Amino acid sequence: MARNLVKAGHEVTVWNRTRAKTEELKEIRSAASPAEAVAGVNVAITMLADDAAVESVVLGETGIVGALPKNAIHISCSTISVALSKRMNAAHFKQAQRYVAAPVFGRPEAAEAAKLFIAVAGNVNAIAECQPLFSVLGQGTFIIGDEPHLANVVKLTGNFMIATVLESLSEAIAFARKSGVDPAALLDFLTSTLFNAPVYKTYGGLILEGKFEPAGFVVSLGLKDIRLVLQAAEAKSVPLPIASVIRDRFLTAIGRGHQNSDWSVIAQIAAEDAGLSITKSADA
Amino acid sequence: MARNLVKAGHEVTVWNRTRAKTEELKEIRSAASPAEAVAGVNVAITMLADDAAVESVVLGETGIVGALPKNAIHISCSTISVALSKRMNAAHFKQAQRYVAAPVFGRPEAAEAAKLFIAVAGNVNAIAECQPLFSVLGQGTFIIGDEPHLANVVKLTGNFMIATVLESLSEAIAFARKSGVDPAALLDFLTSTLFNAPVYKTYGGLILEGKFEPAGFVVSLGLKDIRLVLQAAEAKSVPLPIASVIRDRFLTAIGRGHQNSDWSVIAQIAAEDAGLSITKSADA
Amino acid sequence: MARNLVKAGHEVTVWNRTRAKTEELKEIRSAASPAEAVAGVNVAITMLADDAAVESVVLGETGIVGALPKNAIHISCSTISVALSKRMNAAHFKQAQRYVAAPVFGRPEAAEAAKLFIAVAGNVNAIAECQPLFSVLGQGTFIIGDEPHLANVVKLTGNFMIATVLESLSEAIAFARKSGVDPAALLDFLTSTLFNAPVYKTYGGLILEGKFEPAGFVVSLGLKDIRLVLQAAEAKSVPLPIASVIRDRFLTAIGRGHQNSDWSVIAQIAAEDAGLSITKSADA
Amino acid sequence: MARNLVKAGHEVTVWNRTRAKTEELKEIRSAASPAEAVAGVNVAITMLADDAAVESVVLGETGIVGALPKNAIHISCSTISVALSKRMNAAHFKQAQRYVAAPVFGRPEAAEAAKLFIAVAGNVNAIAECQPLFSVLGQGTFIIGDEPHLANVVKLTGNFMIATVLESLSEAIAFARKSGVDPAALLDFLTSTLFNAPVYKTYGGLILEGKFEPAGFVVSLGLKDIRLVLQAAEAKSVPLPIASVIRDRFLTAIGRGHQNSDWSVIAQIAAEDAGLSITKSADA
Repeated sequence: MARNLVKAGHEVTVWNRTRAKTEELKEIRSAASPAEAVAGVNVAITMLADDAAVESVVLGETGIVGALPKNAIHISCSTISVALSKRMNAAHFKQAQRYVAAPVFGRPEAAEAAKLFIAVAGNVNAIAECQPLFSVLGQGTFIIGDEPHLANVVKLTGNFMIATVLESLSEAIAFARKSGVDPAALLDFLTSTLFNAPVYKTYGGLILEGKFEPAGFVVSLGLKDIRLVLQAAEAKSVPLPIASVIRDRFLTAIGRGHQNSDWSVIAQIAAEDAGLSITKSADA
Repeated sequence: MARNLVKAGHEVTVWNRTRAKTEELKEIRSAASPAEAVAGVNVAITMLADDAAVESVVLGETGIVGALPKNAIHISCSTISVALSKRMNAAHFKQAQRYVAAPVFGRPEAAEAAKLFIAVAGNVNAIAECQPLFSVLGQGTFIIGDEPHLANVVKLTGNFMIATVLESLSEAIAFARKSGVDPAALLDFLTSTLFNAPVYKTYGGLILEGKFEPAGFVVSLGLKDIRLVLQAAEAKSVPLPIASVIRDRFLTAIGRGHQNSDWSVIAQIAAEDAGLSITKSADA
Repeated sequence: MARNLVKAGHEVTVWNRTRAKTEELKEIRSAASPAEAVAGVNVAITMLADDAAVESVVLGETGIVGALPKNAIHISCSTISVALSKRMNAAHFKQAQRYVAAPVFGRPEAAEAAKLFIAVAGNVNAIAECQPLFSVLGQGTFIIGDEPHLANVVKLTGNFMIATVLESLSEAIAFARKSGVDPAALLDFLTSTLFNAPVYKTYGGLILEGKFEPAGFVVSLGLKDIRLVLQAAEAKSVPLPIASVIRDRFLTAIGRGHQNSDWSVIAQIAAEDAGLSITKSADA
Repeated sequence: MARNLVKAGHEVTVWNRTRAKTEELKEIRSAASPAEAVAGVNVAITMLADDAAVESVVLGETGIVGALPKNAIHISCSTISVALSKRMNAAHFKQAQRYVAAPVFGRPEAAEAAKLFIAVAGNVNAIAECQPLFSVLGQGTFIIGDEPHLANVVKLTGNFMIATVLESLSEAIAFARKSGVDPAALLDFLTSTLFNAPVYKTYGGLILEGKFEPAGFVVSLGLKDIRLVLQAAEAKSVPLPIASVIRDRFLTAIGRGHQNSDWSVIAQIAAEDAGLSITKSADA
């Protein structure tokens, strides 16, 4: 993402928890702390692993809220809880700063290729100011509403929907294989007809290949997102039975030792539970 | 389907359990029994509601197996059990007849518009002979394998996948509505990005509209299909946890009095369980 | 059961599908067919594995219905479907015979020790005539209603409740072990307080011991009973979400190769899914 | 509990968040803050609704940790998270105080009648010193281990097991009622045989009566406990599929407006999902 912004002519300062990662990015200034990184900027963008990381970087002692100039905008791209998004909005408001939630969809390849999809929510004018940046980072921006946390709701919902696709493909492919159907024929049928969407093609391909390492999106992060969606839904008294099933699958994958695999590894769990020892070939 | 075949220049004789329905079809001969309908034909096509109907029409006393000429082909388009498909194959084989399973995907509108998708399995030569008919009925034929029942596996899997989409959309939209997200904005985001597939657009639209009657596909038939996929998977020792969740949803919909609604009515159940009384508008 | 009846002074003729089993029972006459076994008797008792066996023995060509004297009573002790129980009642009624459903609860040891519990339903007078037999076979008879199939509903419900205990103990013990709690201390606490019932003691002990073979009640029979309760509930539009979870567990156990183990083997599945490789000892 | 301690001759000072409640207790001194209540005592007992309450009373500015004398014992009877129990243990240790976890089982009637069951964990000597108090409060003490949080694991497990009983009874009774079985006959059978335990009798009775208000244990507290067990199990990578089902039931109960009912109100949800409008009488 930083590389794409530089390419587009933006001046970028980066702070990363793992300094080594920053140093790979030539022509990009590196800062010693989040506060140093945002001093004097118009826009701060955060992209971090989870609530704890975002909380410390944004609300911590040397965090962004304490150093971002008045009227500057903080764009939060991380997948975080709805509750934390609300708290950040309040904290920025108190400092006369602006806050836009802009969680992104896409695996690492998509980020590199500037092909992310971005769900955006916040003040209309702030969003308009950020639009040129979104255009650099992604292939599409979707404005969800004027309260920032609404974009986080959409992001969590989207990840829940992707996880559902993973689980349903996992079950379907296990069933097909045990029934003697070539899983490639099944997937070709599905993705040529009613399920002709990127999510089925990408993950269907991964599952057929059975290649869950190295992980594009690690199963423990998948579990985190399902936890966040369950928590946010619980706060509103919304039962999500499928999310509960998926949560158990991710836990099982971790329990059985796949904590470093891609979240699509649940296909291997489904296959093993059906008595299939590998996921690649058809065996009746 | 019959109308499209006639339009394409085929000679068609129809037998329908409800005679009135047949009479609507002008220029189509009507038969008094399945046996009469298939006497002397090259190809018999069946399209019926469930296993019981197919069993009686095909294997019953005045059924197709007893009357179809040698070497003629029976194309079974119904959504039926894997077990019955195997039994029909054996019965036709015994009479030197040929059997092709060709279950179709598509709501009534798609059938009328000849836009069905067809999953086909059976003897390669038989399929080749039928291809002109499939081209009239649908917009795409997918050859799954040379044992007919494999197409039934794919059909059941496909309906399970559609039902999963229904359930995940139902949960997602209930969550979005309770969280203050406009469900139309959510759906637009999903179907413009990773979930850019007909199944999300069609059913997402139906759910947003909240119009579950008249039913395009009634919930009791949805339950039947989930039952068939669970039975076929059980016979192969394959657990399908999401299918079990969906089964309970369909049962709940029927239990609560929606037995005549479209199977997407489970969105109303999900909404009610979250404390939302109607499914149409956003209410935080 | 037969041995206990003989001991109590009853004249017993036995027919068993596996003749060898019958021959172990000295002082008991052995018949060549069900029809031969029931010729001239006052009471016929059936105790068979599943619907198919009962259907063939009772309703088949050389079955009981064709040979049982008028006014004689058929006591069905098997765990069968509600639907078959209704059909048998109708068939016996047609022949002026009487039919009592009396499914029994208890593992093989209990049957031998005449410690079965019996749920009974049927005509009040017929039940009264059978009471002396029930007293020989079990330690308690419970009259459920005057339509025989009601006892089958209770039997299926009971087995569902036992399976729920199995599953909840399996989950609880996996959680306790991973948390460092001695599972024996947990079980002692539970069975000394609110869960002070035989079902928790028997199965808790089995699970702690981790000895699932030889099976007292094999997992495939457990799956059969859960299938029957799900089918009977589906016929009445009753969703049973816990039964669905248990069904998936039994299928997983079978899929993973434990088809000959006791149904409590699901504790091993739960342990393995939590990353515990054996079920016996505590390991944090 | 306080009344029973006074009756047994102990000197008791009480602090309650709702002062009015304290004033009902004559002969008991009332304190203005937790710190005041524990000044100079040998033993402090806390019994509070949730983690937030315990955290503020124990670890807050005027909390127990800051005021309890050295070597004195804090007995925590609340149902709280495993994580908070560990943190309290560490905090007391730092102050040279002792900490015993002693969560109690029993509805309000049991507390009044000194019929609680107590799961205890902590230092052996500290437990021995507290034993006379436990004997006053309950009818049985069970020592789980020497790390206090282990008792909290047992308490959460126990509440999960009770909730499972609630859910299985709810499903069983809905099925029985729709099948024409008198639910009282079913319950009598169960609780006279394999399920002859207090938890089935107490809750079975409540469900048959259909009287979910006033609540003995409110559904939102039930949801809290299931959340705690799911969180603690997640921290150890243990999937608990039945707990997930129950969580959805409690959420549904709250979503449908029963937030102030007893947690056994999920029986009404199960009944309604099966198309039964009330829970009291049998209706086929």
